[in-house]
Amino acid sequence: MKHILSIIDLTPADLEAILTESALMKDRYRQGIFDPLYQGKTLGMYFEKPSLRTRVSLESAMNSFGGGSVCLESSGLNQMWKRESVKDQARVMSRFVSMVSMRTFSQEVIEEFAREATVPVVNVLSDFGHPTQAMADFLTMKERFGDLKGKTLVYLGDGNNVARSLLAASAYLGVHFIWSGPEDYRLDQDYVERVMAKAVDAEFIEELDPTKAVKHANVVYTDVWASMGQEEEAARREMEFAAYQVNEKLMGHAPSKAIVLHCLPAHRGSEITDGIMDGHQAAVYDQAENRMHIYRGIFSLWKGNWRV
Amino acid sequence: MKHILSIIDLTPADLEAILTESALMKDRYRQGIFDPLYQGKTLGMYFEKPSLRTRVSLESAMNSFGGGSVCLESSGLNQMWKRESVKDQARVMSRFVSMVSMRTFSQEVIEEFAREATVPVVNVLSDFGHPTQAMADFLTMKERFGDLKGKTLVYLGDGNNVARSLLAASAYLGVHFIWSGPEDYRLDQDYVERVMAKAVDAEFIEELDPTKAVKHANVVYTDVWASMGQEEEAARREMEFAAYQVNEKLMGHAPSKAIVLHCLPAHRGSEITDGIMDGHQAAVYDQAENRMHIYRGIFSLWKGNWRV
Amino acid sequence: MKHILSIIDLTPADLEAILTESALMKDRYRQGIFDPLYQGKTLGMYFEKPSLRTRVSLESAMNSFGGGSVCLESSGLNQMWKRESVKDQARVMSRFVSMVSMRTFSQEVIEEFAREATVPVVNVLSDFGHPTQAMADFLTMKERFGDLKGKTLVYLGDGNNVARSLLAASAYLGVHFIWSGPEDYRLDQDYVERVMAKAVDAEFIEELDPTKAVKHANVVYTDVWASMGQEEEAARREMEFAAYQVNEKLMGHAPSKAIVLHCLPAHRGSEITDGIMDGHQAAVYDQAENRMHIYRGIFSLWKGNWRV
Repeated sequence: MKHILSIIDLTPADLEAILTESALMKDRYRQGIFDPLYQGKTLGMYFEKPSLRTRVSLESAMNSFGGGSVCLESSGLNQMWKRESVKDQARVMSRFVSMVSMRTFSQEVIEEFAREATVPVVNVLSDFGHPTQAMADFLTMKERFGDLKGKTLVYLGDGNNVARSLLAASAYLGVHFIWSGPEDYRLDQDYVERVMAKAVDAEFIEELDPTKAVKHANVVYTDVWASMGQEEEAARREMEFAAYQVNEKLMGHAPSKAIVLHCLPAHRGSEITDGIMDGHQAAVYDQAENRMHIYRGIFSLWKGNWRV
Repeated sequence: MKHILSIIDLTPADLEAILTESALMKDRYRQGIFDPLYQGKTLGMYFEKPSLRTRVSLESAMNSFGGGSVCLESSGLNQMWKRESVKDQARVMSRFVSMVSMRTFSQEVIEEFAREATVPVVNVLSDFGHPTQAMADFLTMKERFGDLKGKTLVYLGDGNNVARSLLAASAYLGVHFIWSGPEDYRLDQDYVERVMAKAVDAEFIEELDPTKAVKHANVVYTDVWASMGQEEEAARREMEFAAYQVNEKLMGHAPSKAIVLHCLPAHRGSEITDGIMDGHQAAVYDQAENRMHIYRGIFSLWKGNWRV
Repeated sequence: MKHILSIIDLTPADLEAILTESALMKDRYRQGIFDPLYQGKTLGMYFEKPSLRTRVSLESAMNSFGGGSVCLESSGLNQMWKRESVKDQARVMSRFVSMVSMRTFSQEVIEEFAREATVPVVNVLSDFGHPTQAMADFLTMKERFGDLKGKTLVYLGDGNNVARSLLAASAYLGVHFIWSGPEDYRLDQDYVERVMAKAVDAEFIEELDPTKAVKHANVVYTDVWASMGQEEEAARREMEFAAYQVNEKLMGHAPSKAIVLHCLPAHRGSEITDGIMDGHQAAVYDQAENRMHIYRGIFSLWKGNWRV
């Protein structure tokens, strides 16, 4: 058993193992092979925020292995941590389910839960990170580019949870990470230092000018400017991030073979244009699909009593 | 792949194929035969309105084939179309699930979704129509009467989505459709003309006097007077529709072999009396059960790469 | 088919059969044996109150037999009994699912539903009782003590639904039941008389002094002081029940081999201390796990067309 709480809590070898297993599981899925790895078993899911992609990809992954899922959602849940300690929930859930996925506001809740749980726990989005999203992104990049060493990922926008996980995955896999956005939205320096100390032939660069940032990009990555819970800041952010929109003009500065990724949902017309979303450089739907294959990969490794 | 968005978007042959396959699937279900047609697969369900019958019949149908379902519900959903375009949702869901069911306020949302989806989509209730309800109703009628050609279906009440789908199914299957209700609640003439242009030996009649309307009925059909979202009009409607209540007196004017259908939920004491609901002419629970068999029929056809 | 609406609606032989079958099913579960008893089948679940343990244990039990579950929840539901009669829901659900679980505010709703249903119904918590909780508790006691005849269960706190079910199970299985709590929270005398009339070598004792109550306890049992819906009384109850807290001092008055049970969720620091919850006498997580095994036992008996 091995929890997946963040990329930096894993080793580079863990990350490689997940990507390799996920690619294998994707291949078997595409061939229509039914592996009843979780027949009779249950995945327990906690969602403090609503979700489309994450919930459907998790449940579909579990169904694909013959198992089922129980989804404990938002409003009721906020109440739940009050009604019962995280500790007790972790101990009790461990008696009923084979593994647990958690989308929480606070990374601390996931970590406390994982400490008490006797089944593996996967973070499927917290304020701190979004590790399985970064895994799906790197699986998509591997499919497009093969070996990733020396490639360049340009992330435009807020240095948020998604950016943090992407930076760590980049550092582990020898990918240069260029962040570009308004100065107030830089990644926290402590985190960057912690990650880059583990980097293997990978650089971290801050470049506030987006046209310069994308110049040698293999991948141009963007995310919504205001996440759930930041609605009141949305108008201000809309202005501050305007220069970082991924549009035809900006992509004119990038190499023509660069691909565009977005973790979705996209606000078409804000951080990305219709033209780019629907254009030939976008790999966003493959990227979304890979969320499911990453879960299949992780579940498969867990079933094999994964010890890296 | 073939979407099921409305009866009139199907051909008469499509409708016949669904009824035939559903009857076959019902037979196998009754015999306790487990067909693992969807083992490892997932049905994606959207519900903008809450549902009992539809949700349970869809999930039970999917379970009966060894598959699973993911249910995306109401409040969160209304938000979702805002958070993410229908186009992107359709493309992403298509990567995760084998088929999609949609209960939406607006038929346009379903149609837009279906245009972008690469998996089949079934409308399980919109403002425009309720095609799978009509299919369940006609399966029930076939079970009771065998050949339906020349039979008469009398629909009492609002010329709503259910009435629209019943009219189209009647026209396709050679059943005379008599509508009876307050003048302001007639079916829209444009729709009637569009449907009747495709009719095969079937008539459409408007008869405002309910006692005359039911005189030669094989089937007397009613629905709630106020649907979800029409609560504020409920009192007014209660008065306007009072004369069209399906009660013992009205059924005294119908042939004694006529059956009574209701798509449920029933408001006992409003559009139908306890005596009729619990009486020997009512076929409403068989009719409800047939919702599930229709979904089994549709899913089975889809699995067989249905091309009619 | 046999409904499980309350312990006193069952016979002692029924209760013994459930405990025996559940122990057997637990053994098979632990051995990793997959019994596809409900492959292709569906459990219908009604929840008027939110739930963690009950929902997850039911769904996991159903998944463990290869079946699926449909969960109809709270807010929508309260509306549902208004939108549609309990009678009609029972008849319709019976057409779609293999069995039904119900958590309702009112026992009467469950009983009305069960009268009309043609599939078995299990009460998973009502204002009147919590029979499957009591079954899980007695399974836990059997695991610890073997034969239960002559053992003593001390229940501290409100003479509520949980207490009622525990008393009935105690009476059936020859266990002495000591209730200890503030005088205003005694079990209703009518109920006690009805139960004790069926008792087999079992006594019912009220002892308001908790230190005296636990003196010969084999099991010390507590529950939250204020259940869902009693939040406004919580402060008052906190004071009234203070003397009945299960803490190190109180347990000093009990035999050292006594075990502590709690149906959870626990309010650590209120009715039970951290020290006791995390101590060696607590059997609360085994007890929670046994909820699932009880459901497996019941479902297995139902599948075998259980007639005791």
